[in-house]
Amino acid sequence: MKKLILLRHGQSQWNLENRFTGWTDVELSPKGRVEARRAGELIAASGLEPRYCFTSYLRRAIQTLDIALDAMDRLWLPVVKDWHLNERHYGALQGLNKADTAAKFGDEQVHIWRRSYDVAPPALAVNDERYPGADPRYASLPEEDLPLTESLEDTVRRVAPCWEELIAPTLAVYDTVFVAAHGNSLRALVMMLLKKTPEEIVAEEIPTGVPRVIGLSDRLAVESDRYLK
Amino acid sequence: MKKLILLRHGQSQWNLENRFTGWTDVELSPKGRVEARRAGELIAASGLEPRYCFTSYLRRAIQTLDIALDAMDRLWLPVVKDWHLNERHYGALQGLNKADTAAKFGDEQVHIWRRSYDVAPPALAVNDERYPGADPRYASLPEEDLPLTESLEDTVRRVAPCWEELIAPTLAVYDTVFVAAHGNSLRALVMMLLKKTPEEIVAEEIPTGVPRVIGLSDRLAVESDRYLK
Repeated sequence: MKKLILLRHGQSQWNLENRFTGWTDVELSPKGRVEARRAGELIAASGLEPRYCFTSYLRRAIQTLDIALDAMDRLWLPVVKDWHLNERHYGALQGLNKADTAAKFGDEQVHIWRRSYDVAPPALAVNDERYPGADPRYASLPEEDLPLTESLEDTVRRVAPCWEELIAPTLAVYDTVFVAAHGNSLRALVMMLLKKTPEEIVAEEIPTGVPRVIGLSDRLAVESDRYLK
Repeated sequence: MKKLILLRHGQSQWNLENRFTGWTDVELSPKGRVEARRAGELIAASGLEPRYCFTSYLRRAIQTLDIALDAMDRLWLPVVKDWHLNERHYGALQGLNKADTAAKFGDEQVHIWRRSYDVAPPALAVNDERYPGADPRYASLPEEDLPLTESLEDTVRRVAPCWEELIAPTLAVYDTVFVAAHGNSLRALVMMLLKKTPEEIVAEEIPTGVPRVIGLSDRLAVESDRYLK
């Protein structure tokens, strides 16, 4: 059976400060680094031997992967970084404190932005310093690819080509593949693989730093799904 | 002008303990981590913006690169890991203390192993636990590619295809490329690029953690060569 290991990055500095993060490139917290190491130890102890890795363009996911790989003595594995695996873009909310945002827009509106499938937060302006095109890592991408905000549905649509063109073909070659990414980009993969409905996927909480192992047939049909503990 | 940035990994635990390291996968020392961060800061301050990175299969080089990239806010860059960039294989001397080895074989013999171009230390046996084929990272390579020991000449011959097939073609696409590797694999690149003689290259000391910037024409002829300080 083929195995896809999914790992949500450990706690970040802004998780800790309760701020909307999205594409903001924040650091792991010390607790997040401990979670990442523990995740690597769990994967190693389970006997899984990933041969190829994918992560996002954001350091909290990249460093989670690197710390986990170091703990597994597999830092030498190939790692492909793809911005399609970035967290959901949170638009003009990025950087705001969640409590302040609720006070300004009302709890109900914030709940809709956070827990609906197809409603996006207010968009960034193109001249906003948070606009992805102002960041060297995205500067060479076509403008129409750069989000100003995203609903979860937009994130699912954005992650889909990474699955189809990179991860699935890699699983055809290597039995075990490891993806370290974000709550919503992992929701996107889980939705596609486990054929979840929009209602099911918004209710799905993926914990930080706990490896999830999806077993797949040679045709990439899901045969098992469990967290390592 | 194109730029190739070469960086020798920071001090490792075995540099500190004065042991022959070679392909042994030792950790950076705390000082080595500081050197790596400082190297990244120097590259960033110089205004160089690498677009693509190469490193070896050994964690002291991989982590030097990652720490430097983090300091440069470029952890999102693509990184290709290639065992051809590993340190010179030190054969049966790997793991031995340099002072003990000198006491056993004599200073002159050790000097010859360390400072000649074409003399290799005693070879490992294939059933030695240090044999590369016993390590999962090299297990899928053809047996004839796996060294049992190497002279510097062997290392130069091994690094050459990495330059010709990976780094040079990447420099054709990206103006600035960053290679984090080891004293002898970097000597190999320097020898090829700067057309050094065997006598010149064995006399060349590449310091740990100091970025070296080689300027190249579009035809990859060397136009400048300096260390960042």
